[in-house]
Amino acid sequence: MDELTLYIANKNYSSWSFRPWIAMTAAGVPFREELIPFGPGATHPRFLELSPTGRVPVLHHGTVRVWESLAIIEYVAEVYPDAGLWPADRESRSLARSISMEMLSGFRALRGACPMNLRRPIKAIELPGGVTADVARIETIWRDMLHRSGGPFLFGAFSAADAMFAPVVNRFSAYDLVCDAETIAYMDAMRTHPAWRAWEEAALAEPWIVPEDEA
Amino acid sequence: MDELTLYIANKNYSSWSFRPWIAMTAAGVPFREELIPFGPGATHPRFLELSPTGRVPVLHHGTVRVWESLAIIEYVAEVYPDAGLWPADRESRSLARSISMEMLSGFRALRGACPMNLRRPIKAIELPGGVTADVARIETIWRDMLHRSGGPFLFGAFSAADAMFAPVVNRFSAYDLVCDAETIAYMDAMRTHPAWRAWEEAALAEPWIVPEDEA
Ligand SMILES: N[C@@H](CCC(=O)N[C@@H](CS)C(=O)NCC(=O)O)C(=O)O
Ligand SMILES: N[C@@H](CCC(=O)N[C@@H](CS)C(=O)NCC(=O)O)C(=O)O
Repeated sequence: MDELTLYIANKNYSSWSFRPWIAMTAAGVPFREELIPFGPGATHPRFLELSPTGRVPVLHHGTVRVWESLAIIEYVAEVYPDAGLWPADRESRSLARSISMEMLSGFRALRGACPMNLRRPIKAIELPGGVTADVARIETIWRDMLHRSGGPFLFGAFSAADAMFAPVVNRFSAYDLVCDAETIAYMDAMRTHPAWRAWEEAALAEPWIVPEDEA
Repeated sequence: MDELTLYIANKNYSSWSFRPWIAMTAAGVPFREELIPFGPGATHPRFLELSPTGRVPVLHHGTVRVWESLAIIEYVAEVYPDAGLWPADRESRSLARSISMEMLSGFRALRGACPMNLRRPIKAIELPGGVTADVARIETIWRDMLHRSGGPFLFGAFSAADAMFAPVVNRFSAYDLVCDAETIAYMDAMRTHPAWRAWEEAALAEPWIVPEDEA
């Protein structure tokens, strides 16, 4: 079988790269990663060569190209059906997809105001309109899923849905956005997962600074 | 088996409702639809009762609730695996998901400037920044998929990917955004599909006007 190659950008900043990477790593799926640091200015020419959108993440598998973080996860879940990327029961799986797609399509106020930055010291900022509503909706999602599953992850064991919210866990912490005990307990479960720790360690060792993401 | 109920808003305007509706209708999946017209002002109280996001579309199936247009399509594809919602071969399916998720997460300039409006007479508008790039990327996606499959739909037969782009077909036409012959041929295939015609006929018969969507 051809090797899966996941192209990603800076681990410190690339929130969309983090999602399939942590999903695949936590599920024990073998893959090769290739990191291309963000260039200054416009779209990186290597991104344009590798992906039809000029964005990362993008997955290469033989001649197959899969782009969009969640489409990559769906593809890997089909190639490795026993890896447990999605919850096993249909209702949980449908909830996991609903909330993953809410993440993919929404929460733009939070995403715009509070870029992922694993290296950032905890520090609150002035929040533009919409961020508080985004935070509240995400806390509701987490609470509903954790009550339903019993935790420690959204559907019990770590799944693709946790992966889709991983960058939010960093944002909630780095910009000091939450104080609810259940929210913090979930964030702690995420941040002590071995796959999180491996990504974070590499992020902290990166030399590159992206000024736009240093809010 | 419990009946599927798809809650939607105005057929003339609700682009996200259109997507699962046309996917399910074209695939011959049996379902009951319930239309709740947009109210004036803030979120409709019925939307809040029916869906955790307060938005439509939302699918009810017994006690299961599925929201987000594309999560609804994934769920229905699991309940009706033989309906052909996604292309049958894995590579085509991964491309269909990549472009569907590009649609779900992107093209915000086009979506903001050119709301879906099936009743709108064809008329160009002043285009804000970003719309032209969105149109160009969508034409590239369509061309790449049609060349690969041979058409008339993106993956040969009508699939979930066509459903995800259906509202764009109306936008391209209503705001006079395209003139390429291949693009127009694809749009014609879409607009003569029986499922499209059924939705459009109902849209044109609706009495409601949403002023914000009359650009
Ligand atoms: N919706 C896409 C978003 C991908 C995206 O925006 N990637 C960023 C990095 S996190 C990127 O490649 N930006 C580079 C650029 O736009 O030049 C996904 O889910 O994969
Ligand atoms: N990403 C969502 C978008 C859903 C959405 O924005 N729906 C609109 C109608 S097309 C809505 O319910 N708006 C009502 C409101 O916000 O009050 C999806 O794919 O289903």
